[in-house]
Amino acid sequence: MSEFSAVLEQICTPTLLVDEHRARRNIAAMADKARRSGVRFRPHFKTHQSAAVGEWFRSEGVTAITASSLDMAIYFADHGWRDIMVAFPANVREVAKMADLAARVRLHLLVDSPATVAALSQRITAPVGVWIEVDAGYRRSGVAWNSPADLYAVAEAVVAAPQLALQGLLTHAGNTYAATSHAEILRLHGETVTRLERARNWLMEYGFLGLEISIGDTPACSVLEEFTGVDEVRPGNFVFYDVMQQQISACGWDDIALVAACPVVGVYPARSEVVVYGGAVHLSKESLRRADGSVSFGAVARFDATGWGAPLPGVSVRSLSQEHGIIHADPAAFAMHLADLRVGDLLAIYPIHSCLTADLLKHYRTLDGARIDMARIPH
Amino acid sequence: MSEFSAVLEQICTPTLLVDEHRARRNIAAMADKARRSGVRFRPHFKTHQSAAVGEWFRSEGVTAITASSLDMAIYFADHGWRDIMVAFPANVREVAKMADLAARVRLHLLVDSPATVAALSQRITAPVGVWIEVDAGYRRSGVAWNSPADLYAVAEAVVAAPQLALQGLLTHAGNTYAATSHAEILRLHGETVTRLERARNWLMEYGFLGLEISIGDTPACSVLEEFTGVDEVRPGNFVFYDVMQQQISACGWDDIALVAACPVVGVYPARSEVVVYGGAVHLSKESLRRADGSVSFGAVARFDATGWGAPLPGVSVRSLSQEHGIIHADPAAFAMHLADLRVGDLLAIYPIHSCLTADLLKHYRTLDGARIDMARIPH
Repeated sequence: MSEFSAVLEQICTPTLLVDEHRARRNIAAMADKARRSGVRFRPHFKTHQSAAVGEWFRSEGVTAITASSLDMAIYFADHGWRDIMVAFPANVREVAKMADLAARVRLHLLVDSPATVAALSQRITAPVGVWIEVDAGYRRSGVAWNSPADLYAVAEAVVAAPQLALQGLLTHAGNTYAATSHAEILRLHGETVTRLERARNWLMEYGFLGLEISIGDTPACSVLEEFTGVDEVRPGNFVFYDVMQQQISACGWDDIALVAACPVVGVYPARSEVVVYGGAVHLSKESLRRADGSVSFGAVARFDATGWGAPLPGVSVRSLSQEHGIIHADPAAFAMHLADLRVGDLLAIYPIHSCLTADLLKHYRTLDGARIDMARIPH
Repeated sequence: MSEFSAVLEQICTPTLLVDEHRARRNIAAMADKARRSGVRFRPHFKTHQSAAVGEWFRSEGVTAITASSLDMAIYFADHGWRDIMVAFPANVREVAKMADLAARVRLHLLVDSPATVAALSQRITAPVGVWIEVDAGYRRSGVAWNSPADLYAVAEAVVAAPQLALQGLLTHAGNTYAATSHAEILRLHGETVTRLERARNWLMEYGFLGLEISIGDTPACSVLEEFTGVDEVRPGNFVFYDVMQQQISACGWDDIALVAACPVVGVYPARSEVVVYGGAVHLSKESLRRADGSVSFGAVARFDATGWGAPLPGVSVRSLSQEHGIIHADPAAFAMHLADLRVGDLLAIYPIHSCLTADLLKHYRTLDGARIDMARIPH
């Protein structure tokens, strides 16, 4: 039995497998691109949520990171990180925790309203870096990029608070996740940077100088040859990638560093279907539409003696219950790829959205069987 | 400040609030219907996953329960439950854990293939109740109801193993969750029971006598006046209900016993939108299509001094990122219901699918502030 086969043998329930070689390669490529471009690389750790995976970044020279919640930021502070951005609109109900954390690390917060700035300035006493979140077209959070009066009001509120240091303008161009090609990703990215530059110019005219620009989406950060027009990049998903990134051309299948190993619990040749232990509480209900119009909750592969294979053509996770994953195949694909399966075998599921699957499964195994723990964020 | 306002004041991050009075009323109504009908009530505990909520069932006379994983069954065994079904196709990779649990409680398992039966019979020595899972049209797991040869093969394998006691035929008629009316739920339920009776008749002709019938879906169990043609019912979701059950007419808004309290982190009048701290890692990506064709990830309500209100018309959770919930309103609805919101306020989100939201948030608060813990199922 190969070493990897022995690792698989130990798996009883849905388990994330991470290909450390691929993940480190993804990290090195992005770190290298940032270095070449002369921009700060502040990777988003919401995808992996793991101190151990964080060390893979540290060994590429990373010192500044991004988290998506204050609790996650505290977890990474507890694991030695000293420059942490919470890339989520500052939640004023957590201002006491922010004040504590600001006394321990260089904390960066996002604001998009004078009301939030007022709440922060009243309670936080240690110095904090503050970024104005800009809505450059994604329409999630942020000050509208084309509203100079609102940008001014927020910037003015920040600089009035001595402990809040205005760093710059930040956006998450999440609209690139709905792109369908390299060209569209690049077009959306260009539009985003242009809009941020416009916003920065208005603020310069008002006298706010030296503002940086920070962007974060994995699609643009993956596709760009070089980062221009920005000072900081915050991609996160690229460490593992997933089916969504592959579909929009941000990565290849060989770049995906994460699958869920799921036990087969039923084989149904008459329906060309297989049921695995691996449902909505393991994979998440994130889905996408395949080229043939069907909805997919994951791509499916077989394991061999050294790892997982390419996705099986004509096979996908068609639906999810709480614990069940229903894998459907075209009859010919079933005959070729799945007909030999038995209950107790394992299938590899490439996640649609690796961030959500990792958040659910809460730990990893490497291909040589080492366990990698993740944060247990308190709820 | 009211007592409930003081409870809300303590909430800093997305938090599940449970209305214990409503949940107990839902439990009592279902227990009463089962009693009147003379059927065994084996409620599914996958929805609440909580020993404390389990006690609300125990006080209604419940002694037999259902879990959706072996780990969840072990958790409830550790909390004093002695008759537990794992309503998921027996995962032969966990057979050692099954053998241990069977020695502690009356364990019931589901099988749909001779291969699974063989794996169980080789490793389990204590007596176990075994149910043949039947696919009565939902096409998830189970032996096809209209395949007497397959039913026979599984039944024959079970009775050949002395420690496995064949209990009966079981199904989850998950197709009722896609119904659009009482009448359609009842039609699908009637079809399901008829098919199970046909399958039982075939097995009787082969000499397998005394087989029970067990069904489990919340829609049918809620809508039926009385349970006929079955011996056991296993609904779970009804303890809390949710937007999906309301939409298919299985409950009213006043029956929904669970909301997520989410802090407002951004208010965007120009877009008629509000962003809350409460995203895919809190609410799940479960969605449904509203009457106007838009997709909803949750219904939205305001809190008052005693609890949460009815859903706001014209308002819904339009999209979710990992941590963000984007709430969209018709402009008139925004003006009427949301325009006074400030960052730091709380909104109530009725979950689309309470089982998945509870699984993510991992604990509850009652309306008087008591904390209710859930299982921490190891992954």
